[in-house]
Amino acid sequence: MKILISNDDGVFAPGIEALYEALSTIAEVTVVAPDRNLSGASSALTLTNPLRLHKHKNGFYSVNGTPTDCVHLAINQLLPEPPDMVVAGINHGANLGDDTFYSGTVAAAAEGRNLGLPAIAMSLASRSEDNMKCAAQVAKKVVEHLKEHPLKSDQILNVNVPDVTFENINGFSVTRLGKRHKAEMMTKQQDPWGREIYWYGTLGKELDAGEGTDFFAVNNNEVSITPLKIDMTAYSSLETVSSWVKKIK
Amino acid sequence: MKILISNDDGVFAPGIEALYEALSTIAEVTVVAPDRNLSGASSALTLTNPLRLHKHKNGFYSVNGTPTDCVHLAINQLLPEPPDMVVAGINHGANLGDDTFYSGTVAAAAEGRNLGLPAIAMSLASRSEDNMKCAAQVAKKVVEHLKEHPLKSDQILNVNVPDVTFENINGFSVTRLGKRHKAEMMTKQQDPWGREIYWYGTLGKELDAGEGTDFFAVNNNEVSITPLKIDMTAYSSLETVSSWVKKIK
Amino acid sequence: MKILISNDDGVFAPGIEALYEALSTIAEVTVVAPDRNLSGASSALTLTNPLRLHKHKNGFYSVNGTPTDCVHLAINQLLPEPPDMVVAGINHGANLGDDTFYSGTVAAAAEGRNLGLPAIAMSLASRSEDNMKCAAQVAKKVVEHLKEHPLKSDQILNVNVPDVTFENINGFSVTRLGKRHKAEMMTKQQDPWGREIYWYGTLGKELDAGEGTDFFAVNNNEVSITPLKIDMTAYSSLETVSSWVKKIK
Amino acid sequence: MKILISNDDGVFAPGIEALYEALSTIAEVTVVAPDRNLSGASSALTLTNPLRLHKHKNGFYSVNGTPTDCVHLAINQLLPEPPDMVVAGINHGANLGDDTFYSGTVAAAAEGRNLGLPAIAMSLASRSEDNMKCAAQVAKKVVEHLKEHPLKSDQILNVNVPDVTFENINGFSVTRLGKRHKAEMMTKQQDPWGREIYWYGTLGKELDAGEGTDFFAVNNNEVSITPLKIDMTAYSSLETVSSWVKKIK
Repeated sequence: MKILISNDDGVFAPGIEALYEALSTIAEVTVVAPDRNLSGASSALTLTNPLRLHKHKNGFYSVNGTPTDCVHLAINQLLPEPPDMVVAGINHGANLGDDTFYSGTVAAAAEGRNLGLPAIAMSLASRSEDNMKCAAQVAKKVVEHLKEHPLKSDQILNVNVPDVTFENINGFSVTRLGKRHKAEMMTKQQDPWGREIYWYGTLGKELDAGEGTDFFAVNNNEVSITPLKIDMTAYSSLETVSSWVKKIK
Repeated sequence: MKILISNDDGVFAPGIEALYEALSTIAEVTVVAPDRNLSGASSALTLTNPLRLHKHKNGFYSVNGTPTDCVHLAINQLLPEPPDMVVAGINHGANLGDDTFYSGTVAAAAEGRNLGLPAIAMSLASRSEDNMKCAAQVAKKVVEHLKEHPLKSDQILNVNVPDVTFENINGFSVTRLGKRHKAEMMTKQQDPWGREIYWYGTLGKELDAGEGTDFFAVNNNEVSITPLKIDMTAYSSLETVSSWVKKIK
Repeated sequence: MKILISNDDGVFAPGIEALYEALSTIAEVTVVAPDRNLSGASSALTLTNPLRLHKHKNGFYSVNGTPTDCVHLAINQLLPEPPDMVVAGINHGANLGDDTFYSGTVAAAAEGRNLGLPAIAMSLASRSEDNMKCAAQVAKKVVEHLKEHPLKSDQILNVNVPDVTFENINGFSVTRLGKRHKAEMMTKQQDPWGREIYWYGTLGKELDAGEGTDFFAVNNNEVSITPLKIDMTAYSSLETVSSWVKKIK
Repeated sequence: MKILISNDDGVFAPGIEALYEALSTIAEVTVVAPDRNLSGASSALTLTNPLRLHKHKNGFYSVNGTPTDCVHLAINQLLPEPPDMVVAGINHGANLGDDTFYSGTVAAAAEGRNLGLPAIAMSLASRSEDNMKCAAQVAKKVVEHLKEHPLKSDQILNVNVPDVTFENINGFSVTRLGKRHKAEMMTKQQDPWGREIYWYGTLGKELDAGEGTDFFAVNNNEVSITPLKIDMTAYSSLETVSSWVKKIK
């Protein structure tokens, strides 16, 4: 089995090393990741500047670009043949609910899917790295299962691992994305020269975190697995919008 | 009516000026857009550096960030109260099929939606600006219609205008996203110092562009309107994945 | 007379507009400046990414690069023939003493000089723009004088205008660069996610600001004119270092 | 002895590793370097965004900034007490003549000097790394000599090592900076979307490379050592410019 690993925390993040260590025991793994922390990169492409590949001493490649750039460049240029799977992460922090929309980890998996490959986004629901090994073990389990039991579909799997040791995981749950309250106001500061600057602040509190959501699973120490669609068409609204459009004069 | 306009081509793009001119005749309009061309920005957030607002002589604001940053900063900090609607564009070039996934124009609209507002992404299916006025007229029509006939839903409208004059438009079609073939190989070059660099190349050819798709509508000189969902959960796969997960050992 | 104007505060800074207005009454002026604030850019070149030119509605050009890039690109590519002079500024804030080493304004002038042209760096010793017109009048005077009385040398003129009205200027002084105390400690903060970040803080206090220095002149409401050399060779130390080197075993 | 090492080729460049290996045998060495290739950075400061430090597995630190940022941050924040010396490099490629003006390697040394420390810029006159060990041996020799025989002055030493093995070096020469012809025209290309882009092209040919210059020394397989001044005041022109200024009406 050949696996391409990427992430959005950058090529030096402990999460990507933990993932590499776990998966290289069961597959031939290539790591191609951003040279800087690109958290929040979503599916951004670098279009106005060229990309460059750099091979590091540990064999990992870095790219001066986004997670999507990394996956695209790896599959289109670097690898002699497509891998069997793309695994992104392990993200330092959960990717739950609306977070998935902005996540570069989810985006890296999505790019794998867009290029025709099974893809998994892995996140550890913690800013600490204490249970990174647990997340890596979960990743290995899910990858092996997906290898033996392929999912025939055009979705990716968004996997969030609770911040516990492997022994304390309460099983695996398939979930839908929950919802957060709108994010808090941005943080307004002054730079040392007295000019106003703005930072994204803390995440919104959970709004829809009831049973069935990814929030609920992780809060109950379960591994949350959410199948995500890439196709954004709102099929169930096509009819409503059609009759709405007919009234345009 | 109060409207927030943003885009991904940058605050100086002719498309955003054409949109401003058309909508300022029917609403109080604020323009907040990236200070550089951010095509392909998707829903990227700027998390590691602070954002700065700059007011230009023509009253437009620019931000040293992404389309999503612009909409977020405008609504959370700049505007005293939320606008009634977010309109993004007019993009220089179509946003059809898979393009929507990477588009900063669609992302700007999506951010408006995530913050609770009706939102429209406007694109002109041409690299030339000859029919930008036509696209602006279409934008005005759709905005007025949406104002009078609100759509109760959590979707955005992705509007693509064919490259013809307003008189030559064949009506409005509600469509689903089509699909392109995978993009061509990236372009590999050498910089003047002999080092390898990679550029995204030309778009893939149309793969699913049959009746009902956005490609089909635009190819027939119709305005294509696709309702897009922000929620990525693959609801129709929840069951399949659930039984798949149960087999994980 | 043909003049190329650039700066480091960016193409939208009031200082560059004031300079353009003053000099366009006596010369054919082209403005090519960074698209963002590049204060502190020194003589940095953009080598890993390509440069792009954008012509704005007011006729000014912007470049996605540094002040040095702007001058280099203007003279090597944009202008059909070299200008007679390069004038940089008017900088928002003084460029005195050690500041000159880091200043993008001084660097823009230096690039003009490196390409064989007379060059002037203009700065207003104030964060406010109240006396920008005064600085523009001074610029015009110095440019006209330099045009009529060329200086045969390979230096640039670093001009700092005190923060007063034109009537209150106490004449022109030729000065040497003064010295500041080492800059204060950098400012250490936490970003909203609790990670440590560092900002350059306030400038060091004046250390050598006695008679004859640029600090002294500006503090006495005189226009300070310092001739600056581009050649960094420490000629007066060649002998000392030679005997030092002879002892290397 | 405590030494701070930085460079402009980035924290992963073979040149900085070779320098570390050579100097860590004779001193306590801290490495703080840009996280990306910043060749051509000159003395640029990062003023509009904050800086971040990252410690790598090999003990080296990287900064999301320029060579000057690295030296400034290391001395002002990271190190408990100032080092005895700053050594920059080993640059991949010569820094001769006008190159020094744009070099981030020279700038890193200059920042050390500005903060009151002896400083050396080391470059290998080759794009290949074959003789990097030779350059490292030279660095060690010069550092030891400077340690035992301090140079009382405010200059830095710009050292260029010819592209030969250590045995084939023809001794050490103290030199002045030579001069290149103006750089060739920039390279004008089109990006894959047909938009014009510009790259800096090849270096200008040698113009003043006669005896006594750094070019001459390196061309004769000698180590070139040029003392460089940081103070840009053109003292020898003060009188001329004074009488020139007196004529300003």
